[in-house]
This record gives sequence, structure tokens and C-alpha cells, in this order.
Amino acid sequence: MVLKVAVVGASGYTGVELLRLLYSHPLVEVTFVTSRQYVGTPIAEVFPSLGGCFSLVCKPIDPEMIAAVADVAFVALPHKNAMQVVPELLDKGMKVIDLSADYRLHDQMVYEQWYQKHTSPGLLEEAVYGLPELFRKDISSARLVANPGCYPTSAALALAPLIVNGLIDLNSIIIDSKSGASGAGRGAKTESLYCEVNEGFKAYGIAAHRHTPEIEQTLSGLAGQDVKISFTPHLLPLNRGILTTAYASLDRKLLTAELRDIFLHYYADEKFVRICAVDVTPNIQQVRGSNFCDIGVVADQRTGRVIVVSVIDNLVKGAAGQAVQNLNLMAGFSESTGLDTVAIYP
Amino acid sequence: MVLKVAVVGASGYTGVELLRLLYSHPLVEVTFVTSRQYVGTPIAEVFPSLGGCFSLVCKPIDPEMIAAVADVAFVALPHKNAMQVVPELLDKGMKVIDLSADYRLHDQMVYEQWYQKHTSPGLLEEAVYGLPELFRKDISSARLVANPGCYPTSAALALAPLIVNGLIDLNSIIIDSKSGASGAGRGAKTESLYCEVNEGFKAYGIAAHRHTPEIEQTLSGLAGQDVKISFTPHLLPLNRGILTTAYASLDRKLLTAELRDIFLHYYADEKFVRICAVDVTPNIQQVRGSNFCDIGVVADQRTGRVIVVSVIDNLVKGAAGQAVQNLNLMAGFSESTGLDTVAIYP
Amino acid sequence: MVLKVAVVGASGYTGVELLRLLYSHPLVEVTFVTSRQYVGTPIAEVFPSLGGCFSLVCKPIDPEMIAAVADVAFVALPHKNAMQVVPELLDKGMKVIDLSADYRLHDQMVYEQWYQKHTSPGLLEEAVYGLPELFRKDISSARLVANPGCYPTSAALALAPLIVNGLIDLNSIIIDSKSGASGAGRGAKTESLYCEVNEGFKAYGIAAHRHTPEIEQTLSGLAGQDVKISFTPHLLPLNRGILTTAYASLDRKLLTAELRDIFLHYYADEKFVRICAVDVTPNIQQVRGSNFCDIGVVADQRTGRVIVVSVIDNLVKGAAGQAVQNLNLMAGFSESTGLDTVAIYP
Amino acid sequence: MVLKVAVVGASGYTGVELLRLLYSHPLVEVTFVTSRQYVGTPIAEVFPSLGGCFSLVCKPIDPEMIAAVADVAFVALPHKNAMQVVPELLDKGMKVIDLSADYRLHDQMVYEQWYQKHTSPGLLEEAVYGLPELFRKDISSARLVANPGCYPTSAALALAPLIVNGLIDLNSIIIDSKSGASGAGRGAKTESLYCEVNEGFKAYGIAAHRHTPEIEQTLSGLAGQDVKISFTPHLLPLNRGILTTAYASLDRKLLTAELRDIFLHYYADEKFVRICAVDVTPNIQQVRGSNFCDIGVVADQRTGRVIVVSVIDNLVKGAAGQAVQNLNLMAGFSESTGLDTVAIYP
Repeated sequence: MVLKVAVVGASGYTGVELLRLLYSHPLVEVTFVTSRQYVGTPIAEVFPSLGGCFSLVCKPIDPEMIAAVADVAFVALPHKNAMQVVPELLDKGMKVIDLSADYRLHDQMVYEQWYQKHTSPGLLEEAVYGLPELFRKDISSARLVANPGCYPTSAALALAPLIVNGLIDLNSIIIDSKSGASGAGRGAKTESLYCEVNEGFKAYGIAAHRHTPEIEQTLSGLAGQDVKISFTPHLLPLNRGILTTAYASLDRKLLTAELRDIFLHYYADEKFVRICAVDVTPNIQQVRGSNFCDIGVVADQRTGRVIVVSVIDNLVKGAAGQAVQNLNLMAGFSESTGLDTVAIYP
Repeated sequence: MVLKVAVVGASGYTGVELLRLLYSHPLVEVTFVTSRQYVGTPIAEVFPSLGGCFSLVCKPIDPEMIAAVADVAFVALPHKNAMQVVPELLDKGMKVIDLSADYRLHDQMVYEQWYQKHTSPGLLEEAVYGLPELFRKDISSARLVANPGCYPTSAALALAPLIVNGLIDLNSIIIDSKSGASGAGRGAKTESLYCEVNEGFKAYGIAAHRHTPEIEQTLSGLAGQDVKISFTPHLLPLNRGILTTAYASLDRKLLTAELRDIFLHYYADEKFVRICAVDVTPNIQQVRGSNFCDIGVVADQRTGRVIVVSVIDNLVKGAAGQAVQNLNLMAGFSESTGLDTVAIYP
Repeated sequence: MVLKVAVVGASGYTGVELLRLLYSHPLVEVTFVTSRQYVGTPIAEVFPSLGGCFSLVCKPIDPEMIAAVADVAFVALPHKNAMQVVPELLDKGMKVIDLSADYRLHDQMVYEQWYQKHTSPGLLEEAVYGLPELFRKDISSARLVANPGCYPTSAALALAPLIVNGLIDLNSIIIDSKSGASGAGRGAKTESLYCEVNEGFKAYGIAAHRHTPEIEQTLSGLAGQDVKISFTPHLLPLNRGILTTAYASLDRKLLTAELRDIFLHYYADEKFVRICAVDVTPNIQQVRGSNFCDIGVVADQRTGRVIVVSVIDNLVKGAAGQAVQNLNLMAGFSESTGLDTVAIYP
Repeated sequence: MVLKVAVVGASGYTGVELLRLLYSHPLVEVTFVTSRQYVGTPIAEVFPSLGGCFSLVCKPIDPEMIAAVADVAFVALPHKNAMQVVPELLDKGMKVIDLSADYRLHDQMVYEQWYQKHTSPGLLEEAVYGLPELFRKDISSARLVANPGCYPTSAALALAPLIVNGLIDLNSIIIDSKSGASGAGRGAKTESLYCEVNEGFKAYGIAAHRHTPEIEQTLSGLAGQDVKISFTPHLLPLNRGILTTAYASLDRKLLTAELRDIFLHYYADEKFVRICAVDVTPNIQQVRGSNFCDIGVVADQRTGRVIVVSVIDNLVKGAAGQAVQNLNLMAGFSESTGLDTVAIYP
């Protein structure tokens, strides 16, 4: 018997990616999709890529109707919109995987400082941060999972082995990330136009990006003390992928091969984390369309720093794929069900 | 029990795409991969996208060894090289799906006029042209399938309904095709460099491209008489996809909706051909990574012409995917096994 | 003494390209720029590429003020908007180069059939179609020049030698054009987003694009009889450039070299038209940022057709560069003033 | 009277860019071009973008012949090759602007540690590092100018105001740079193929890139003491441009606006350095094809760091444009002659 799920907010890039992945999931059936903008339109007309695969028609968001036909809801709405829907879905007895930022930060004050007033702060304590490699057990029993941000996923997986093993100066962390354009969503903004992004590259939100507190929350948790980072996101002229280059000062001399062994060991049981060979770092291309996070690590003997490079597909491990991985945990499926595919290259 | 297959010529773009698709095929196991250039190297080192999915090491081409561990061989070698291997694989009792041009043309003289001397002409009669939508029955019982070229696939599927139904002037066919850069292969040539392709667009091989006789062979077969076409391929600055715009003069007045109905009817039972809505034509994006061929058709009342636009992923329906589709037919599997996936978008 | 000019509609891609070219024009000074959207904002803030080069602030459109500081106006507004401004600019004594479609079609009925009601039809007879290679003399003495569309420029230059020399069947012309994304303008539309264009390719406006009657008007004028064409535009994933592949049936047998000689002779005195070597056709890359139109021609002996490939930069020879070329003619400057530059490659 | 110059190594991307810029230089004539690979071929056949602009034919490198027709040579050869030619050109009485790495490092030992044995170390002392904003006076009187590397140009201009004003901890500098694909040159390598770069992004040469000592040499000179940096270059999927994100710890609390004022003041007289508005950082797009270096600076109050973002066109300010700027200084021309153009956007 299959599990019935709904995709709330199906007409964005995360929504269509959820539908792509769920179509290949053998134990799941999508029974409901919503889209404010396209109410009444078949989702396969919104996205011709879905033609022949989905016959669902976009509906408005109606928690009652959703709960009547589905057991789990993926909420792929913008932050602020998400928290207006999630509590009611939970009330109707559903489990929820929320892909927005609304339930990621444990501390309401931090949330309100970087975003806006929180309208269901009571759920912040219950919500589990859905990074399976770090919080697998809690996810398995969660009713509400806050699916991590794309940048935070790439940063946390890159730095966790160093922090957990106490290898770096926690005041020295710099995270220089580069994301493909799908991360900016499907809204019609001048700055997201083809000619504005193509043959272009820029930083944005320097020292002010909202993923900063989310990254710090995870790293602080791992470190057992407050960690502050510098985080600079950039916009790449490509559709999919995030590459994070993380820098930190090593507390003691370590060779590249030793660092790599530490990473290999830390992620030994992880299906979706692959550690590159010595002196190799990954290309965004090698994870496109897949749920992998590939990581390379280098020791810079001249400066005593470690440089970690991680790549993910921002729409998969950075969003929809991780959401499905969380679903698998919550539903008691094998964690890689529906996700055990090869990246699409070239 | 799974079917054991080999990929001969695994280090090109078609090779890696075969491996991607076969990894997700539930009834197939890849037991052997060859690469002249990378003998001794794990294929997952050649293509990091395969990391954690394939542990095979590249071997030289040895038909005896291949036949010892596999029942079917995909040959993804350049033309001329392919026909030096295929006969021996057949001799060892294997079934072969050849993705080169070597066995596509029935007429040895035509082959030798457009390519070079044929070294196993005796197999030309036996070889079945592997376009399932047109030659399904023959493929099912074939020992040697000649997998169609990418352009010919897009052209044949675009024009078949018009020709079979006798709707167009056979002397009026013009095929203007545009292909992504992976069609040029993975060879290190100056003209294939990033900066030579990016922000560029050009025609090539005008009135001289080797896919011309292949297209004409299929269309002539459908028409029951000789068909000559003008075919112009162009190089698109993108990785994957072919869009073909085909023009022909209608023999009688037909509306766009009537033409569309003819296409709908002709492809009514085809899983991998999708006909667009009236007045809609497809974007290469909507088939990326999938085995679909999407087709839109328009009648130009002012000039009495029909314009057909078809799109495929040149590496899937134009190569590896069609090869797997052929395998499914040859092996008696359901035709869409391992291919029933949603295109990756964006 | 320099000529003072205004750019009306400076905040689109054609506007900023006009400013780029005019900055390097030794005999021109830009004294006024307008932008509805950015009134009060320095144009160099709208387009940082202009930083340090222009200190002008965007103004609303006020013909009186414009005429007070400039002698010639470039109008880079959308059609319909343009004809609401042009008459008044002329009334104030200015010369006008209108880059919209509003004055390109001589026949009011044709304009109204493809666009909408014309609000200043009285100017249609006076307006000169600004394709210097064909209508140089009239442009020199014009008060109002209708700058050609980008597709029509590439098509007319590709076909003129064949039509003027009576070499082709006028009922056989097919024009398959491909344009970069800047041709769609800078408006914030979902379909123009990076992820919708990148790694994509599609036809649009099949048998219905508004440039069709403009092309037909020019070709009919050259032929001395009515010419109907099939015209299919496509959207390329690149910023700049149009490549047109034109097909026609030859009335008599001609070799590629003979055809090329005819093109060479026809354009012998043209600075901005370059004819490729025998069997060579051009790449969009080779004209990027320049005012050149490069043309290659091939005879297809098998089918008796001629295939012509032309490339232009849609923003230069297809818009702003041609406008400056027209300005030079109208002002009595040497025709290539400010345009004698090498294309930017790669 | 014009200055006669030769371009040695004209068939690479830097070579063709030199020719593009020199064509628009009113005081220079190119009289000689060399290319090993294309001896006997007109340079406009190698690069169709030069058609109608250059009639020169590629010659082999013959210092005697070069010196007979030119006074200054631009050497655009790979390192190691360059130093086999430069001494002889100097001996023949020419001035030389060398765009390779061979004369950039003052210290022979450092050169030999990062590159290979130096074959004309005697010239290292004489060679002037050609970064006009820092070493203008020496360049004016130089016989041999070592044109800076692309990354080092972007890094030095980003950090100079901070170091000269003693604002940062010199042990804290991290330089995270991203370059377009033209920086890898026009050699036919698999890793430079379109499909390997497009939709991809990677770091390379981590802690080992040869531009590291060049950056350190400049920064150390400015600081008056040894400076060690971490430098990570990345490969962007675009043709032109470098964006450098530089991080350092501030020695005292400074606001973004204060830092910006320091940059404005430091570069007050520089034509080619533009400082962005407060809280604005530049996009690679805004300098494409131009000689500008645009810089934005941000203070991160939370961490006490300064983040500087600089952009250049790697082929212009990072190579050919800076070489022309150096030529202007050496020849006593106005420094911006031939370079005073608007960036090409979009």
C-alpha cells in the first residue's frame, strides 16, 4: 500500500522537483497539488515536463480537503506563507515536511530578527531540523520536519566533521557559497531574467543573508558553543547546484590525507555523502539531479587553514530530495527509496 | 533474475548516459565496461557522477571476455570502430545494440558514399533499425539493432504521420534541426571548447550531413517512394536536446487542430511520444533527461505549409534511452522499464 | 561641433546599447535620456556598465524639453507607445529614428491587421525604412526613419541578392530564424527568466510572428511582386545574436561558388556586410557587439535549393547599431562613424 | 604618426582581444602577428570576428623581422615560451609588454619554485610589474613590462586600500576568486569542453595555484612586510570575467560607509577603478569588454571582517586591456587612449 502525499505550492521550482522525485518513488502516491496562481489548471500544463505522468489539477489550499486525501504534506511555500498553513495541516492530523524557513530556527527571537513576526511560535520546539545526516533519529519520530535551507545543508555537511572533532578555530570560519539561479525561485523579477544572470556573476546579501543564523544554529549545536560565521552567497549562471567553499584555521597541523580520513570516517555510513579522493574537489555537475553531497577537503600547509568544498543540487539535497529523504525516515521506508539514482551528466 | 549487459565504449557521453539509465533499470545489471582511453581506471573515477553507484573498472574490448559475463552488448563507439567489434560480439552469441551509424543504412553503397568502406556488409540486411515507434515488431526479434541517429529520430517522428497519411508534397520537405553540444561527443577539439560554443550558434554540414541519407531512408520507406530532403543541423549552446523544425507543403487545406488530431491518432499507443496542445510547440527543456519525444504541429494557412516541431533529449531518446527501449523489446520486458521517469526541469 | 541627440526609452536593452555605441561616437553627444520607470534615477545607476561614462538622469518624456536640447531623437519604446511620441517630436522640428515597428509598414491596413489601430497613419508614407544597404539614398534625406526589426534585417540581407537577380522561386522561401534572449526585452516575465531560457530552446509565434509582413514588404519590393514567406522564429539560450537560415528553390542550377560570387558582387561596396568563404557559414559569435552582418551561402545540388545563413547582433545591426548607421546617413557623417569596431570574441 | 606594434602569439584568446582593442586605438598600428599553429593563414581566417579589419597573415616568431616593422611587442605566449622570445626582442631594440608570468616575480627562486627554471633571470630586476594603479611611474619608463595575471589584478586592486591604510590583520586574508572559461585559454583539453564547463562550477588548484606568489608579492610590497594569503580560484560557466571575494579581519571597527570612503579616496584619480555605492557590490556583467575594475566593500559588524568584491574582464583589465594601458604609459599617450569605452551589456 502506498503512502498518500500532497504537495502544497506545486508551481515553483521546488514543487515541480518534488513531483519529479515522487513520481519515481515506489511507495508514494501524490494525490493533491495546490497552486494559488494556477487554480484549475492541470499541473502538467503548468509544467509540460510532467505531461503523461501527472493528471492532477491545481487546487487552492484547503487543509480539510488535503487531509482527506493525503497523510503527509510537503509545504513548498515561501516563508511567512508556510506558517499560515502548517499549523492547520497538523491539526487535521497530517505529518508535515515544511520546505520554508519558518520552522528551522529554534529561537523565536532569532527568527523574528532575520525574518518577521512568527505566527505559530509554539511549534518551534516541536519542529525537527531535517538534516538526516545529523538528526536522523529525531526526524524518524517527528510530526513536523523543517527541511533545511540549501546553503545551510551544503555548509553544515562541509564543516560538521571538523567541528565535531574539534579541529578548527571556531572564530575563523568563512563560508563562500555559490548557487545556481533556480535558488531564486520562479517569480518574475527583472534581476532573475536570463540576460541579467547569463554571463554574469555577483555576490548578494553580504553579511546579511537569512541563511546565516540557520548555519550558525547547526554549527553551534555541533560545537556546543556559540559559533559566528561570515557567509557570502553568490549567484551562478547555471540552473542547479550549490558549491560551498569553506575556510577555517586548523588548531593543529594536519595533512590533506588525514583530514580526508576524518571525513571518510565521519560519513562512513552515509549513502548520500561522498568524499572525494585526495587532492580532488567536486564539481557541481557531478551531483546534478541527484541527492548526493560530494565533499573534498584540502589542508593549506602554508597558512594552516583547511579548505572544504562541498556540492549539492540545490533543488534535490538542498530541497526536494532531502524532503523525500525525510519522508522516508518519517514513514519508516528505507532512507534512499526513490532517491537511489545517478546524477545526470552532462 | 537480471539480464547481464556490457557497455562497450563507456567513456563518452553516450556511455555515461547508458550507465545512468541502466543503474535505474530493475531488470538489468551492467557487468562489463570498456574504454580504450581509461583501461584500468574505475569508471566512477572517469565520471564522478557514478561514484557510489558503479565499481566497475574500464577494460579493453575483448569480445570473448565480454560474452563470458554479458548477454547483450551496447556498443557506443564511433562509426567505423563499431563495425570492427560488432560481428565478433554476435559470433560469440551476444545480442548487440549498436549506437553508431554502421548498421543503420540498409544499402551498402549509400553507406560507403556518405561514410567509408563497410567491413561487414553482410550484416546490413539482418540489422534492424531501432526506432520502436515505427519498427517495434522487427526489433523484438532482432539479434542486431542499429540504434537510430539523434537527428533522424527527431525528424522521423515529426514527419511520419504526415507521410503515412499522404498529406504532404514529398519534394517540399525541409528539416532544420538544432542540437545541443553533447551531440559532438567528448573529444578534445578546439571547436567544442566552452568559449567556442557558449554565446554562439552556427549551422554546419549544410547539404552534406551524414544523417541525411538515414532520414531519407526512413521517410522513403514510409512513403513507399524515394524522398529527398534538405537537412540543416545547427549547434546550440546547451548540453542536451534536439529541436527539429520541419516544413512541408500540404497537399490539401488542413487546420492546425485537424493536423494535431492526425498526430494524436498516429501516436495514440505510444508511451514516449507526447503531442502538444493546439497552437503549442515544445521546448527542449521539457524532455531533458527523459525518453520522451514531444511534438507540436501548426498549419500555416497563408502559405499552405505545415510546420512540425519535435524535441528529444539527444542522449536519451536520441541515443541511450532509445537503446534501452530497444533492449526492453529484445528482452521481452515492458517497453518503458527503467525509462518511466519525469524530465528534469529546470 | 557635435550633434546633440536624445534617447527616448533608455532603460531597455536597446536603450543601453544605444548609449554604449553613442559614447564611442566622436560626433555625437547624448543630452537627454528618458525612462518612465526610472524617472529621477541616474542612468548609470540603472545600468552600472555606464558608470563613469554618463551622468545623465532619467527624465519623463517631454517633447518640448527634448527638442530644446537635442536635434535628433532615437525612440526605443515598444510599438504603440512609440507612435504616441514620434509625431510630437517631429512637430518640434526634430529628426527621429524610431526603433519600434510603428512606422515600418507602408500599408496602414497591414499594420492594423498585425498590430493595432495606427494613431498617426499620415506619417507612414513619409517614413523611410532604415535598411541602409537597400535604401541608403532615401535615408539620407529622411526626417523620420523606421529602424528595421532584427529578424527582418537578417532575412532581407540574406535574400536580397537572390531576389534582385531573379534566381529563386518566390513561392518557395522559408525563413528559419533563431534569436538571443535580449530580443525579448527587459520586461519581467516568467518565460524570460534565466531558468526558463537556459538549457532550453523553442520556436514561438509560428506562422503568426509580426515580423512576417515586414519581411514580405521588403522582399516584395525587391521582387516587384507579392512575396509570401514562411517565417519561424526561435529563442536561443544566449544574450545577443540572430542567425537566420533561409531556404529557397533555385530557378536554375548554380554552384555554391557562383552563388557566393553573386553575393560578393551585390555587397561589394558595403562596409557592414561580409560574405564568408566558399562552404563556410557564419557563427553568431563573430559579430557580437559589432554592426556586421555576415552571410554564407550554399547550393544543395541534391535538392536544387539554396541555403543562406546570415548572422547579426540583434542589438547592434538589428537595432541600435543600424540606428546609428542611419543617423550617420541623415547627418551627413561617414556611414561607419562610431561603428568601425571589431566584434567581441570570445 | 602611429606607433607600430607586433602581437606575438596572436591565435589565443588574449591575442585576439589585443587585436580587437588595438584596432580601435587611434595611435597604434599592428604590423605583425605571429602564430606557430597558423603560419601562413590570415589572422581573419583564424578569427572571423576580425574579417574586414585585419589583413595580416600569421608569421612564425622571428625577432629580427618583428623588430624591422614594429617598435613595441606584445608577447601573448604561455609562460616558459615567453622567456625564450623576450630577451631577443629587447636585444633588437624593442620595448616589450609580456603577458605571461615569466617576468612578474622579482625573485628567481620563487619563480622556479612555482614554475620552472628561469632562462633569463637577469631581466627579472629590470622588468616592471605592469599594474598602472600601483606602479604607474615605473611603467612609464620601462623597457620590459610584465603584465599582471588576471587573478592578481583583481586581488591587488581589491586589497590595496586596506593594506596601505593599515586596516586589516595581514594574517587573515582569504581570496576566493571565480573566473570565466577564457582564462583557461584556447587549448583543446577535455576539461575545457563546453559540456564539461557548462552547468558546472568547481574550485581548482586549491592552496597551489601559481598566482598565489604573485598576489603575495604585490601585497607584501604594499604592506612592507611578508603577507601570506589563502587563494582559491574557481571556474565559472561564462566566457569573460573574474569576480574576487576577499576577506580579512579589520584591526578596528569600521562602518561600510567609512570603508567605502577610504576606497573612493585611494582610487580618486583612477579612470579605470570604479567604487560601488554603499551596500552595492559589482556584477561581472558590468565590466564585460571594458578595462574597468569595479569594487564594492562591506563591513561585517557581526564578525569584524571586511569583505571586498572586485570584478574585471579577465581578457581586458586582466590581460589585453591592461597591456594597452601599459603601452599608453610607455608611449606617453593619454592612459585611456583606445580604452575609453562602455562595457557591453547585456
